[in-house]
Amino acid sequence: MTDATVGELSEAAVLRAILARFAPSHALIGPGDDAAVLAAPGGRIVATVDTLVHGPDFRLAWSTGYDLGWKAAAVNLADVAAMGARPTALLVALAMPDSTRLSFVTAIADGLRAGCEALAPGCAVEGGDLTVSDTLTVAVTALGVLGRAAPVTRAGARARDVVAIAGDIGRAAMGLQVLFDRFRDAAGTPIAVRPDELTADEASAVDAQLRPRPPIALGETAARAGATAMMDVSDGLALDASRLADASGVTIDLRAATLGADPQRALAGGEDHALLATFPADTAVPGGFRPIGTVGARGTVPLTVDAVPYTGRGGWDPYQDWDAARG
Amino acid sequence: MTDATVGELSEAAVLRAILARFAPSHALIGPGDDAAVLAAPGGRIVATVDTLVHGPDFRLAWSTGYDLGWKAAAVNLADVAAMGARPTALLVALAMPDSTRLSFVTAIADGLRAGCEALAPGCAVEGGDLTVSDTLTVAVTALGVLGRAAPVTRAGARARDVVAIAGDIGRAAMGLQVLFDRFRDAAGTPIAVRPDELTADEASAVDAQLRPRPPIALGETAARAGATAMMDVSDGLALDASRLADASGVTIDLRAATLGADPQRALAGGEDHALLATFPADTAVPGGFRPIGTVGARGTVPLTVDAVPYTGRGGWDPYQDWDAARG
Repeated sequence: MTDATVGELSEAAVLRAILARFAPSHALIGPGDDAAVLAAPGGRIVATVDTLVHGPDFRLAWSTGYDLGWKAAAVNLADVAAMGARPTALLVALAMPDSTRLSFVTAIADGLRAGCEALAPGCAVEGGDLTVSDTLTVAVTALGVLGRAAPVTRAGARARDVVAIAGDIGRAAMGLQVLFDRFRDAAGTPIAVRPDELTADEASAVDAQLRPRPPIALGETAARAGATAMMDVSDGLALDASRLADASGVTIDLRAATLGADPQRALAGGEDHALLATFPADTAVPGGFRPIGTVGARGTVPLTVDAVPYTGRGGWDPYQDWDAARG
Repeated sequence: MTDATVGELSEAAVLRAILARFAPSHALIGPGDDAAVLAAPGGRIVATVDTLVHGPDFRLAWSTGYDLGWKAAAVNLADVAAMGARPTALLVALAMPDSTRLSFVTAIADGLRAGCEALAPGCAVEGGDLTVSDTLTVAVTALGVLGRAAPVTRAGARARDVVAIAGDIGRAAMGLQVLFDRFRDAAGTPIAVRPDELTADEASAVDAQLRPRPPIALGETAARAGATAMMDVSDGLALDASRLADASGVTIDLRAATLGADPQRALAGGEDHALLATFPADTAVPGGFRPIGTVGARGTVPLTVDAVPYTGRGGWDPYQDWDAARG
């Protein structure tokens, strides 16, 4: 088959090409019927949805279809993990222009599968929806199951808890900066960059932006270890830690010295989807997490850094921060 | 508050306005955390996703925000019902242009709530995602639970089963025809039409197109009554009955005399989301369903009407049938 556009094919043909990229389903009923049927051991399921939209969320000059599928999986798996749950299934709603090439669509499918297999073995795409749209949009729903532990919300942090994090902070933001600085010409037009034009650090930061690797399995680990609160850091550590502090009615104090070589970028940069959790002071922080601060009684602000109220940039708000540039 | 655009507001403000429209959550954990936590009695859950995109799926000249929310709920509830399950939760991903008015967004929320309350009491929006997009898109995931009965797939129909349907067939298609014929001028530009310019039949057909009322509760009823196969009719009775026949390896014969005043429209017209089911010949068809045909051994075609192979129009395919008109 030549690389047809989806506008030249039937929905059934596009769907067949996608399903051919996936591994056999482990669901009670997988893709192909009106809905998937999933086992929910323990009788509680966790469900979340997150959308990637061409423009505000990705640029096709920089992201391949594979990258897009991977990232759409990763960001949703992280939300399930942040409840202390194990992801079991994704549902994918794909809205795309008629002119989209089939090879791009199957690359998205490959990225979804690879992201699931690498980050959350046992989780797979179990359903979805295809439609046309002027704007390429990937909306992913992730479902997961809880073990014996209670779900870990944002609201359970208590004074004297230890604040800990698992996963990168600031790497994806550094990657975005590299893309903006090096992958555009003076007029802002995206340009190709050879791998040998980037340092190893720059290349790995771009990878972290385009194909983030949040530590999904550590969500369940944290729940079993007694985490009192948890969330994934999608919009920046400072903003998300403030949200957790607000939800819990506490003040969080972070130690800048624990935030890597560039604490400001670690605080402001989003999209790494690290797991931010709090643990009782008398509990060992589980492997994979590193302490970055402490919880105190609620003060006048939700967040301090080295005991000073944090007033830096808060993070990304799509309604206020997107510059409307595409590419 | 004046009726601001979402581009003038923060994501948090838009979200607050939406959540204020919903009833209190019955989930273990409802909106506001990384993911919702839902009870799954019996340990099996049903999950589906369906998307409405401005252009191919709706036109703002004809659909209010309320209509859009209602329809997004209805089409997804129908997919859950078609598995024999009871819907318990929706997740809603809303991608919209910066210029979208807050009142339009809250009208979507009102329509989602009203659609759930009218069609599937106990089901509510339990999570979602907001982002900006050039193309207004509502992607809804619906989750449901199965009672003691096994899920009802498309693949279980057997020779001698009775074919039955619950809900409208062809009404939504008639409504779309009224919109195309009466709500546009000669140049194709949408125009306003006073209610008294439509017959009662035309007005109710437009209602069926904009705010469909699939018989959601009858999905569980059918499963308990021993339905061997079931699906919701989204793309037209002929196409969807053919899909059910193909999945089951049978041929379905429909009787035209049972398909209402306009059998051709009933066969070709989609978007009613009626429930199409098959029942063993020795079982009473449950109340709310009406027999429309019989299942036979697989012949050369999946579908016959009055024993003649059906060769009419199959139904809607977004990749081949959308004319790219907006409005």
